[in-house]
Amino acid sequence: MASTFGERVQVSVFGESHGGGIGVVIDGLPAGVPISEETLYTFMARRKPGGSPFSTPRKESDRPTILSGLYEGHTTGFPLCATIGNTDTRSGDYKALADLPRPSHADYTAYLKWCGQADMRGGGHFSGRLTAPLCVAGGIALQILAQKGIFIGAHLQSVGSAQDIPYPMRPDVDTLLAPGKKAFPVCDDTAADAMQAEIKAAAKERDSVGGTIECMILGLPAGLGDPMFDGMENRIAGAIFGVPAIKGIEFGSGFACAAMRGSQCNDPFCIDENGDIATKTNHSGGIQGGITNGMPLRFRVAVKPTPSIGKPQQTVSLSKHTEETLVIQGRHDPCIAHRAVPVIEAVTALVILDMLAEL
Amino acid sequence: MASTFGERVQVSVFGESHGGGIGVVIDGLPAGVPISEETLYTFMARRKPGGSPFSTPRKESDRPTILSGLYEGHTTGFPLCATIGNTDTRSGDYKALADLPRPSHADYTAYLKWCGQADMRGGGHFSGRLTAPLCVAGGIALQILAQKGIFIGAHLQSVGSAQDIPYPMRPDVDTLLAPGKKAFPVCDDTAADAMQAEIKAAAKERDSVGGTIECMILGLPAGLGDPMFDGMENRIAGAIFGVPAIKGIEFGSGFACAAMRGSQCNDPFCIDENGDIATKTNHSGGIQGGITNGMPLRFRVAVKPTPSIGKPQQTVSLSKHTEETLVIQGRHDPCIAHRAVPVIEAVTALVILDMLAEL
Amino acid sequence: MASTFGERVQVSVFGESHGGGIGVVIDGLPAGVPISEETLYTFMARRKPGGSPFSTPRKESDRPTILSGLYEGHTTGFPLCATIGNTDTRSGDYKALADLPRPSHADYTAYLKWCGQADMRGGGHFSGRLTAPLCVAGGIALQILAQKGIFIGAHLQSVGSAQDIPYPMRPDVDTLLAPGKKAFPVCDDTAADAMQAEIKAAAKERDSVGGTIECMILGLPAGLGDPMFDGMENRIAGAIFGVPAIKGIEFGSGFACAAMRGSQCNDPFCIDENGDIATKTNHSGGIQGGITNGMPLRFRVAVKPTPSIGKPQQTVSLSKHTEETLVIQGRHDPCIAHRAVPVIEAVTALVILDMLAEL
Amino acid sequence: MASTFGERVQVSVFGESHGGGIGVVIDGLPAGVPISEETLYTFMARRKPGGSPFSTPRKESDRPTILSGLYEGHTTGFPLCATIGNTDTRSGDYKALADLPRPSHADYTAYLKWCGQADMRGGGHFSGRLTAPLCVAGGIALQILAQKGIFIGAHLQSVGSAQDIPYPMRPDVDTLLAPGKKAFPVCDDTAADAMQAEIKAAAKERDSVGGTIECMILGLPAGLGDPMFDGMENRIAGAIFGVPAIKGIEFGSGFACAAMRGSQCNDPFCIDENGDIATKTNHSGGIQGGITNGMPLRFRVAVKPTPSIGKPQQTVSLSKHTEETLVIQGRHDPCIAHRAVPVIEAVTALVILDMLAEL
Repeated sequence: MASTFGERVQVSVFGESHGGGIGVVIDGLPAGVPISEETLYTFMARRKPGGSPFSTPRKESDRPTILSGLYEGHTTGFPLCATIGNTDTRSGDYKALADLPRPSHADYTAYLKWCGQADMRGGGHFSGRLTAPLCVAGGIALQILAQKGIFIGAHLQSVGSAQDIPYPMRPDVDTLLAPGKKAFPVCDDTAADAMQAEIKAAAKERDSVGGTIECMILGLPAGLGDPMFDGMENRIAGAIFGVPAIKGIEFGSGFACAAMRGSQCNDPFCIDENGDIATKTNHSGGIQGGITNGMPLRFRVAVKPTPSIGKPQQTVSLSKHTEETLVIQGRHDPCIAHRAVPVIEAVTALVILDMLAEL
Repeated sequence: MASTFGERVQVSVFGESHGGGIGVVIDGLPAGVPISEETLYTFMARRKPGGSPFSTPRKESDRPTILSGLYEGHTTGFPLCATIGNTDTRSGDYKALADLPRPSHADYTAYLKWCGQADMRGGGHFSGRLTAPLCVAGGIALQILAQKGIFIGAHLQSVGSAQDIPYPMRPDVDTLLAPGKKAFPVCDDTAADAMQAEIKAAAKERDSVGGTIECMILGLPAGLGDPMFDGMENRIAGAIFGVPAIKGIEFGSGFACAAMRGSQCNDPFCIDENGDIATKTNHSGGIQGGITNGMPLRFRVAVKPTPSIGKPQQTVSLSKHTEETLVIQGRHDPCIAHRAVPVIEAVTALVILDMLAEL
Repeated sequence: MASTFGERVQVSVFGESHGGGIGVVIDGLPAGVPISEETLYTFMARRKPGGSPFSTPRKESDRPTILSGLYEGHTTGFPLCATIGNTDTRSGDYKALADLPRPSHADYTAYLKWCGQADMRGGGHFSGRLTAPLCVAGGIALQILAQKGIFIGAHLQSVGSAQDIPYPMRPDVDTLLAPGKKAFPVCDDTAADAMQAEIKAAAKERDSVGGTIECMILGLPAGLGDPMFDGMENRIAGAIFGVPAIKGIEFGSGFACAAMRGSQCNDPFCIDENGDIATKTNHSGGIQGGITNGMPLRFRVAVKPTPSIGKPQQTVSLSKHTEETLVIQGRHDPCIAHRAVPVIEAVTALVILDMLAEL
Repeated sequence: MASTFGERVQVSVFGESHGGGIGVVIDGLPAGVPISEETLYTFMARRKPGGSPFSTPRKESDRPTILSGLYEGHTTGFPLCATIGNTDTRSGDYKALADLPRPSHADYTAYLKWCGQADMRGGGHFSGRLTAPLCVAGGIALQILAQKGIFIGAHLQSVGSAQDIPYPMRPDVDTLLAPGKKAFPVCDDTAADAMQAEIKAAAKERDSVGGTIECMILGLPAGLGDPMFDGMENRIAGAIFGVPAIKGIEFGSGFACAAMRGSQCNDPFCIDENGDIATKTNHSGGIQGGITNGMPLRFRVAVKPTPSIGKPQQTVSLSKHTEETLVIQGRHDPCIAHRAVPVIEAVTALVILDMLAEL
């Protein structure tokens, strides 16, 4: 289904940018697991708009109401539903766009698919705002995973041409989670300056800029995943492309493998300092044949530049079938890659929780 | 399920490298569609081992027996089962490996997952040989799609550092399918020479080399796909990672988008020379919000170097828990990227046929 | 998933009897379809508690809040979420039961499955109250189907030993829908008296009574459904058993077929008065090989007596592992079969809408 | 999918009555489980045609070829494919029927669904012959379950008006499996005489007769199953209707519950002779809220009379749109209910194996 993913832990996202509210249902959570709402809100604050000069000024509390599935701080064993009200919606900004599809938005494809009948105000169900309920669900999943000793972290690896250092091959948990505790989610703080300079430069020109995110998982049991079409890569990629603006994903050394020799790319086995079987390198990203091998699971995603920019763009009039110039009003994020970092963690956590439920 | 994918057209692959046979069941095909077995064999010949000095000398006819689903050259409307016998299996080559997992193969993860109980002779169900039944299923799908005016083509875009030219932004069908008609699937024949030189150099050093593949789809109806988790990217990526050795996928300009400004990356709308709405560039790869926009659908995948190499490698003994040196006997493909080209076409065709069935 | 069903139109129910609220998400609705909220409320009123002396006095408005998926009276093309608040919950009535599972309720099996961790106040997620969101979803589905000329009706066929007449073999739409417009959903009003006498007699003895429901669908396209495991019977039965208290389902003449000869049970083909191919009898219930044949689709379900009764019953103490006597306090429906009639229509409508989406 | 069922253990059936062969793929079996082919053949012999004067004389060895998934008598952990050749197919018997659909067969609905394009010779994919691969898969599942202490048995409970005694409320394993070891699968041998008399009487009149089957499962873990749409009843019913000729299913006391009072129908809890919590009656059939309660799981199905009968029947000509008389040539089972007994066990075993995999 379009807005649903997962096999044993299923997540269903609903809502439109300018409707009554947005939210999520998670079916398949275990019963009796303690969940801290404060920890959840802290996590959600990481994707919140308005948190910095680098983000859209739309202000929303985004604090979810949990209708079911949680009772006295513990999961009930039944579907959890959380809703978030839409409070700051100025439809006027978008209405004029109905006839002039914004380049590289879903306006035109939605128009084709639903013959102009879908409610696309503010991007409708395609709005980046729908990542808020994903973060509710994922934030809960992260708490459950942490109780099992599984930790997921991510950081901005690049913005435009500015690069962060990658995670170490086998980081400890603190190193993994450190970027998520900073105002700007990087490993190396000097990278933050260069990245923010890229964002400011783009903003100044009423333009936007893209980025990449590196995500890593520690503590995963070895032997998780299935061959062929139900492997870790299939499941993670199948869900991650549900995050708006993601254009690519690579596991381990990914595209770089294509230029390597086998003798470079293969990960030799060794006995590590704890006496455990490990690999000396991790070009595989912790996965062989779709199944975890006990090394950190590592992948990278590409986030395209925010398609809403202030610069004039060429589009067409759907009613007149003519080429037109479009200037998008309102203010928009000059970069969404940093706000996408917790979303990537959230979706990854949901996939992992789902796969663990199959053990 | 591990070895199954698809919602309305479901493909189920079975078999082990050294078992009685391998094959595929396709459930959900339409009835009464003409299928040419000759065309199918021609397609399958493209992935066949032994076809060139660049491939493994294991010789198999790989000609499938179609048990059901096809009658007098037409689909019956019921599940199609095709089987392929295993005739040239020399288990001796592999048996010694049972205790010494090959680096960057699934030997070790399968050992962990199934506690040593899985039949991993010759790579078992993880063997690249399982791509033969995928090509049976995909070859049939390609014929059905062609009858609907939908064409899928792919070419080797790189091997090691040698690069082919990319497909044009809007190729005609002949240009799209040309690489698949060549002994070596490239657009620019001079690229073939450089690529083959890379493969020979690797082979000479008992090593292997990786590559990338560009795939494109022409003739797709606009408006195909769904928002969020059931979009074109989700569905294609979720299946493509079922092909062994794929480490990354990117749609349109993919990872390159991350370094772009929005004003470069956005695809402006225009009225094209046929009077149709189109985009002037195709960084989006023909997809917006998970839904096709009528432009060619375009993606690229990374294929890692064949993990079986003749060079000595470090591994561990599972029984003795010691580090050991492994020299893999037998001959193996120094590159599998060119043989993966029709497999990528096949899997893509199956995903598209499945998604069309939902229209 | 436990609380989710459907392939192309997916329904996800959430909430506990005594939690913050209950509700439903429907993913996969078409865009732009007019939905009347008044018609929906009229439909929902049919299952409402407190509507008659034959029902539980728990009073709830049960008027849903539609958060998404509906805009200005039309579906938006995106998931529809409706929530219903829980306003009249007196946990005290149930708390004592935690250690004494009620016979033929889910108390004991939930205790086993979730090790006592599930929130089972008031029956938790197993409560009959969860049929309210099912009626929201189904009421919307019924409106969409009616716009396509497909009508679903049901009536109480029996309560205890009191019987209603069956629907005619090929009723018109008015006859089909007539029971749903009455305070007590029967075809023959004299049957209502006998049924109500059975209910009153049971109530007087602090007991309850079961019943059967006949459901019929008119206007279904012929050729709908799939062979084997995805036929009309599979899909309907698979969903209908999600309605609490259903213990059996039969299609057409069902169990009566088992005592027939083939020459009686087979439905001979004929040309009917409109010149269409039809069958002279409908023991098949409008389905052959899982696929509709154009005759009315007809099935019957068995509803067990309400398990909550005022009479003393034998149970066990989970903590003391001793046999105990339980007297359930509070007032409960002496019969739920009549309130289940619209729920059966609702779930059936959702299954049909889902299957139509696959055409 | 039409010919596929299961979530974690997925069964995919293929083949047409008169095609090259039929078979099954099972994906999701555990690795390393011993499977006896002899035990499997003994099980399959129970559904074999030609075994008695009460069955069709079509003779087929029906001995499957196992292509994959089994190695040296143990499951490999990968998909198991078994094929069965079609050797005794006389298409002539059926060809004349193409224009004259047989009453209460799938001929007409298949004609509608596939516009006459499906291969319906001999009933095509709807043929009862497809239950042979179901028995291969189910026979393997039964062996795996037996190794876990779970046993499934079934017997003919009625043929026409002749009745067998029901299983005792809590039979031992020998009593459960006894009917399956007899030439005619009943509990009470005197019932066999009466049933066979009914079948002979029908056969003599070139007619057929239906029956009912009672199935029971011993040794199931308590707490298995899920609420609402994924309960034991949903899963079993959803699969069982994939067996041809099944028209109804009821769990526990089923339709009889509808005429009961709650005080009769509720199953009081008690401490049994082993000191375990049990219920004094089992009207619930071992299931509450979709979840097993530790009592035997019990259900009954209705099997309609074989639709192929020698008596003249009324049908229509699809080409001429006229009413015609049809006399079906060839010999057919006057009753299929006894041959359906092992098929019900097989499908039930597959559902249970699937649900256990989710624990």
